This record gives sequence, structure tokens and C-alpha cells, in this order.
Amino acid sequence: MRRIHVIGIGAGDPEHLTLQAVNAMRDTDVFFLLGKGEEKQELIDLRQEMLATHAREGHRVVEARDPDRDRTPARYASEIDQWRRARADIYEALIRDELGEDGRGAFLVWGDPALYDSTLAILEEVLGRGEVAFEYTVVPGVSSVSTLAARHRVGLNRVGRPFQVTTGRRLAEGWPADVDDVVVMLDARHAFSLLPAEERAELDIYWGAYLGTPDELLVSGPLDEVADEIEHVRSTARDRKGWIMDTYLLRRRDTAEPASEGTGGGKA
Amino acid sequence: MRRIHVIGIGAGDPEHLTLQAVNAMRDTDVFFLLGKGEEKQELIDLRQEMLATHAREGHRVVEARDPDRDRTPARYASEIDQWRRARADIYEALIRDELGEDGRGAFLVWGDPALYDSTLAILEEVLGRGEVAFEYTVVPGVSSVSTLAARHRVGLNRVGRPFQVTTGRRLAEGWPADVDDVVVMLDARHAFSLLPAEERAELDIYWGAYLGTPDELLVSGPLDEVADEIEHVRSTARDRKGWIMDTYLLRRRDTAEPASEGTGGGKA
Repeated sequence: MRRIHVIGIGAGDPEHLTLQAVNAMRDTDVFFLLGKGEEKQELIDLRQEMLATHAREGHRVVEARDPDRDRTPARYASEIDQWRRARADIYEALIRDELGEDGRGAFLVWGDPALYDSTLAILEEVLGRGEVAFEYTVVPGVSSVSTLAARHRVGLNRVGRPFQVTTGRRLAEGWPADVDDVVVMLDARHAFSLLPAEERAELDIYWGAYLGTPDELLVSGPLDEVADEIEHVRSTARDRKGWIMDTYLLRRRDTAEPASEGTGGGKA
Repeated sequence: MRRIHVIGIGAGDPEHLTLQAVNAMRDTDVFFLLGKGEEKQELIDLRQEMLATHAREGHRVVEARDPDRDRTPARYASEIDQWRRARADIYEALIRDELGEDGRGAFLVWGDPALYDSTLAILEEVLGRGEVAFEYTVVPGVSSVSTLAARHRVGLNRVGRPFQVTTGRRLAEGWPADVDDVVVMLDARHAFSLLPAEERAELDIYWGAYLGTPDELLVSGPLDEVADEIEHVRSTARDRKGWIMDTYLLRRRDTAEPASEGTGGGKA
């Protein structure tokens, strides 16, 4: 039986690889690297460095290109469906053609495979078709969200309270109900600037870009005081490097910490 | 200057330690192990095993007891405040008395220090008092939430959509607004059973206990079909082992996946 590892490799710091990820890399014959043709050379180099350090001798790397996607909003639903099928075609062919009957393959996923990544959904679609059989396991990774919190030395939640993880597009539609702490990912256009002024005035931000890498950038403070700085730092860095990847936590200030549960142990 | 590592050690699988966590453990002179006097022997053993494997020779382990807490809800706010001060007193004394002027200390945190853990808040309180000076760094870890998702091989979010992380107590007050995917932690009494029947009927659950350990338990399916099984498995396991630690993802079923962003790359 073919076996596949879906390996979370952390957000950018090679030291964020887990021992399980290292072992899974050592166990792998063929690494499938899927790119969209727009992946940054630095990220490619970083991944190659991880393979050079941890993969076993004789491993193979098979690169393939993710299909392009029409990003016209009017056609999203059908387009996404078609795009997903096209990706499943590619994954299916890779697994069938590049992996022997008892071969071990791996997909490397930035951050944690459970967070805003489609690899698992595609593998399920391939399995569902029944054309090629394989087993797969998921190796959890340190996400950019955990890295952001660690670098700012803050918790994602406040004591006993919820937090939400969302996208820049969603945040641009308004602050989500029932939460005071929101982590924003995939924000191409600093959606925090679209919030109403009276909401922005109540927020602190913990922002980070290129998290875990030598180019890491961190800014935090009251949103009204640091928003301009973030936009400046962000556009300067993007101009210099040609790309940016960032995430942030928005935290509504409050005066009294409410009664609560869940401090100190009792969780994992 | 004293230096302290706050190290996320994963939810229970020693292989979920990151290379950074291993290096931080090797860099540490004194490990501070804080317990509430109710910590399970298995978890103590697991942590000791990690230290035996990764800490350097000559390291010391200093154990201390977290202060007890009055859990009478009526007195929460002041009690939490008092409890936090009492904990800060202990941490301050440990750092001052057990760590030399240039010593390296570490606190080991289950899961990820950013998720429902109070270590960072206490260290900030100690620093704010100004009685003992130290630097500290946070080593992010693989959380029980990431482990849950990996073991069930599901994403935490659906394509382009938000998810919320909350507590059992909060869920018992009602399904949060504006999200269809909710991760529940610190739930002592399967709060999902308190949701209205018509809400439960729309939910799938991905439940896990003792995640990452040899005793790991996983159940998933439509909530109405597996709720009894989870309650049975949960109470049987708790009776047998004397404790339980579990977490779960609730996912509202929908027929059409909405238009979206954020699949495949573009995140970390």
C-alpha cells in the first residue's frame, strides 16, 4: 500500500519542525512539491534546506504546478469546484505515477495542515474517486498563528474567553460578533483599516510578517497609533522583497478582566 | 541577566516537540515544574521522560505547587486576581532564588503557550513588579487543537471561512454567532449536549481525548449519532484512568460550500 505523509513544516523557522516531522521526512521516498508558479524563491530555498538537512539519501523530489485559478468573484463557486477537480487530477497522477506500490510519499505544508490549507481536502477527493489507493497520515505543525503569539509573547485568548480565526476578506465585512480577540490571516490589503473608526479606537494589534524567518517583522500597539507604521513597514518590505506574508491578532481593550476559568494547567 | 524559556511541549506526543523546544531544553539549567497538586502521574512521567531524553546533564528540576483557587463563581473576579498575585509570588521567588544571575530557566507548557495558559501573563506580572530582572522567550508548540485536527485529518476552517476557539462553559451559553466551526476546550461536562436539539441536528463532531498519547481516543460523526458514544467512551475512560482531557471540533453541516479564498498556498 502506498503511504503518504502530510507534514506541517512550520511557518518559516526550520527549528519549528517537530521530531515527528523530521521522522516523517526521513521515512519518505518521494516529496511532492506543488507550487502555483508564483512561489517565492526564498520559500523554495527554505524548503530545500529542510530536505537537505532531514530527508534521507536517495529521496526524490517531484515538482508540479498547481492549476491556475480564475479569481473573478462572480464565478467563484463553479470556478472553485473546477479548480479543486483540476488539482485532484494532478495529485492523483502524482501518487499513481511517481510512487511505487509500497512507496512513501509526502506533501510539505507551511504552518499547520489544519489551517487554511487544502491538501487534506484534495487527498480525500482523490481517495473518494477510488482510482488510486493509499493511506495517509497528518503531521501537525506549528502554525503562523502560534508563531505570531510566541514572538509577541501574548496569548491568543484571554482568560476563559473565546477567540476567532478569520480572513482579511471576512474582517473587511465587519468585526465578528461575540468575540474580542480575532486572528486575521490571508489579508492582502490590511483589512483592519476598513473597520469603523470607533471600533479601531478600541483595538490593540499584534502584527507580524515573514514570521520565523530572518526577515521577520513585528509591530504591536494600539491600532490607531501603529496602523500607519504597519502599512509603511508592510509596503516597504513588500517592495524590497517582492512579496509579503503576514498575519495579526486584533484585541479589543477592556478595563475589567471578567470572571473566568482555565488558567494554569487543565488544558493541553 | 537571567534568561527564561517558556516552552510549548505539545499535547502529549513526545514527538511533537519541535527542534527549537529540544534546543531550549538543552540550553536550560533549571526547569520549574508547577503543579496544582492534582496533576496526573502519567503527565508527570511523560514530562520527566522528555527531560531525561532532551535536557542536558546536570540540569536541575525545581517543583512547586500552584496556589489553590476558590472556585465559587460569585467571587471569581477578586479571587482570580488574588490567585494571580499568589502565583506571581511563587514564580518570582523561584526565579530569584533558584536561578543564578546568569542562569537559564524554563517553564514547560503543555500544548502551545498561547492557548489557554497563564504562564506568560504571570511572567509579565513578575516583570512588572521590578523585583527580579530577566529576559524570556516563548517557544511555540503543537497544540491539542492542531493534534485533534491532524488525528481526524480535517481542517479547522472550511475554505475561506472563520472558526472560533472557545471553552465548554461558553458553548453551554449558546452557539457563537457568525461561525459554523467551533473548537471547544476545557469542557468538563460535554457542553455539546446542552445545545438545543435543532442545533445539534445540524452538527458534526470530531472529538478526541488524551490526544497524542498511547491512550488517545477519537470519535467523529453526526453529533446526534455519536453523542451517546462519546459520553460513554468518555465516562468509561475517566473511570478507568481517573482523569480525562479532551477537546473537540463542532462543524455545522452545509450543502453548498460558499465562494471563497485561501486554498492552497498563500498562507503559512
